Amino acid sequence: MSELPLEDFYCIIPAGGVGSRLWPLSRADAPKFLHDLTGSGSTLLRATWNRLIPLSGEQRVMVVTGRAHRAAVEEQIPALTDENVVLESEPRENTAAIGLAAAILERRHPGVIIGSFAADHVIGNEPLFRAAVTEAVAAARAGYITTVGITPTEPAVGFGYIHVGEPLTVSGAKSVRKVVSFVEKPNLKTAKKYLAGGDYLWNASMFIAKASVLLEQIGTSHPEMLAALLELAEAWDDPATRGPAVDRIWPSLTKVAIDYSVAEPAAAAGKLAVVPGHFNWDDVGDFASLAKLNSSGRPTDLAILGENARVLSDASSGIVVSQTGRVISLIGIKNVVVVDTPDALLVTTSENAQRVKSVVEALRLTGSTEVL
Amino acid sequence: MSELPLEDFYCIIPAGGVGSRLWPLSRADAPKFLHDLTGSGSTLLRATWNRLIPLSGEQRVMVVTGRAHRAAVEEQIPALTDENVVLESEPRENTAAIGLAAAILERRHPGVIIGSFAADHVIGNEPLFRAAVTEAVAAARAGYITTVGITPTEPAVGFGYIHVGEPLTVSGAKSVRKVVSFVEKPNLKTAKKYLAGGDYLWNASMFIAKASVLLEQIGTSHPEMLAALLELAEAWDDPATRGPAVDRIWPSLTKVAIDYSVAEPAAAAGKLAVVPGHFNWDDVGDFASLAKLNSSGRPTDLAILGENARVLSDASSGIVVSQTGRVISLIGIKNVVVVDTPDALLVTTSENAQRVKSVVEALRLTGSTEVL
Repeated sequence: MSELPLEDFYCIIPAGGVGSRLWPLSRADAPKFLHDLTGSGSTLLRATWNRLIPLSGEQRVMVVTGRAHRAAVEEQIPALTDENVVLESEPRENTAAIGLAAAILERRHPGVIIGSFAADHVIGNEPLFRAAVTEAVAAARAGYITTVGITPTEPAVGFGYIHVGEPLTVSGAKSVRKVVSFVEKPNLKTAKKYLAGGDYLWNASMFIAKASVLLEQIGTSHPEMLAALLELAEAWDDPATRGPAVDRIWPSLTKVAIDYSVAEPAAAAGKLAVVPGHFNWDDVGDFASLAKLNSSGRPTDLAILGENARVLSDASSGIVVSQTGRVISLIGIKNVVVVDTPDALLVTTSENAQRVKSVVEALRLTGSTEVL
Repeated sequence: MSELPLEDFYCIIPAGGVGSRLWPLSRADAPKFLHDLTGSGSTLLRATWNRLIPLSGEQRVMVVTGRAHRAAVEEQIPALTDENVVLESEPRENTAAIGLAAAILERRHPGVIIGSFAADHVIGNEPLFRAAVTEAVAAARAGYITTVGITPTEPAVGFGYIHVGEPLTVSGAKSVRKVVSFVEKPNLKTAKKYLAGGDYLWNASMFIAKASVLLEQIGTSHPEMLAALLELAEAWDDPATRGPAVDRIWPSLTKVAIDYSVAEPAAAAGKLAVVPGHFNWDDVGDFASLAKLNSSGRPTDLAILGENARVLSDASSGIVVSQTGRVISLIGIKNVVVVDTPDALLVTTSENAQRVKSVVEALRLTGSTEVL
């Protein structure tokens, strides 16, 4: 295994999404990545940073976030320098975020390898994580766009999957394989087939590649976007030119997820590789996921999040998130989900966890934006 | 029908119980009778008072309540004079409360007829209520202890029932019948039989009798209690003797519900009469009952109580009580019950409404008495 930190390797942390399915815990001004969702004492963003610096070193992590979150992000990561923060004037999806960071890094350090890791995922067993990323960086060095796919532990229907193909021969990446395709979230029957077959991994949205290769791939499907990103990167490091370039170019960038702009076309072109990861991973996509994550592995426990939580319950499943210190009494609801915040209350069940997003939409439509 | 107000008729309103099954809406310092549970703009106590004064006149209503509620009760009923309030130094159940009021009234006005009516029930169609009470007073004048039983509209399992016997011949009380027995809350099968048979009425805990007859009946089963009540009444109207007598006697009174001390033994002795009442009545015993009461008669409506309620819900049944003005979002729980107060939150379903009382017990045991 290569020595850490890895040579010429930069981490990019796109810290963007609010996490609507975790409303009213997650808000526009308190997005998911700024919460400690595991009781670890660290926000997800900080935990992501802590996990990545052994791989790249402190000076080689770049966070891409919204202007509104600058202060909160810097509070979480005091070591961040101005050079290592990219502030988005408005959200334009993660191809723009990751692409701009890659273009800036490529300009500063030609030939650099970048790895993009979501700011709001939870990962256990970090030595295995580092081993997988180290292999992925070796594959990237060999020219592949490489992802780390998670070995499934159950027939999850909430994740996308990676269909894995033949092994590749890459020095320093003994388990790397070709990606056949990326597939959308399956139904339960299909998920069970994937789990049994062994050729499918969970898509954890990690992408490791030479910055130049990633940018080239963006250019293949979105040439106008590549041109814009390069122009922005060119102007970035000069205070006199950055502002005008951002104002002119950023709002024009296509809103597209990197899964569509990079992963799927690269897989179709045979340029995508995957390293299987055997560590625990979760994107904490909704309260059902958060309940599972916080029930100490015992499915018969009610998970309770909140320092001053005072919960009296007969529920043997589900989750209570308490931010108010109020007494919370629950009687007779299976898989109950209660999120108690100072200005908004959510009551539902794990089975309905995915529908929380629609509440956020409804609140937006009815003008209750102050609680979003 | 006799002219109103009825001659020599005094109303007693025992305003005691907290209403534990309506926690956290009802509290020790904000018992059920001090709440407006119907959106009428009046508390249940005030509505009870308003309903009774046409029968007895303003000066002939006596409220029995705890010392802690004196200010709140007087605020609700500014017309109450000191003479018309009996303050309990501690709760001793309603035989003590009603018995003492009856003893005081009998001493002041020998031969008086009293009617006792709970402070926290809801009644519709007041002309029919007045008609039933007028008949009951006629039966009381003839020597019976008389109750008004409610004609059932459904096979309720939350109420006690009155088994009705043969008609009695009493002038001014054409529908009065003998009571065979009082029966406890039935199961659903039995309740259906009661409803179909037509010989059972709901026990609404209304008792109308000559004060002397009621006291005599208490003395039959609890002679020591009768003696104590008469001694207390003797001392009551002299400021010099009331305090010492209360301190000495009140704590010694037996805690017993009037259903057991008066109604059941009187029925067994053939001394109890009943006038069927055809008005709407509810004791608002729990949140299932409160939901029904506030759903505008449409069983597919979510009932919402609270001036500043902001509820976003897909529920077509159940109830939300909002005291905080917070946004409340509910997804996918049938017959949901959410009671949102500044310091305590209850989440359950109508099916579990009766179990709320056990939460109160549990909170007491765990020392969370500040929210009770």
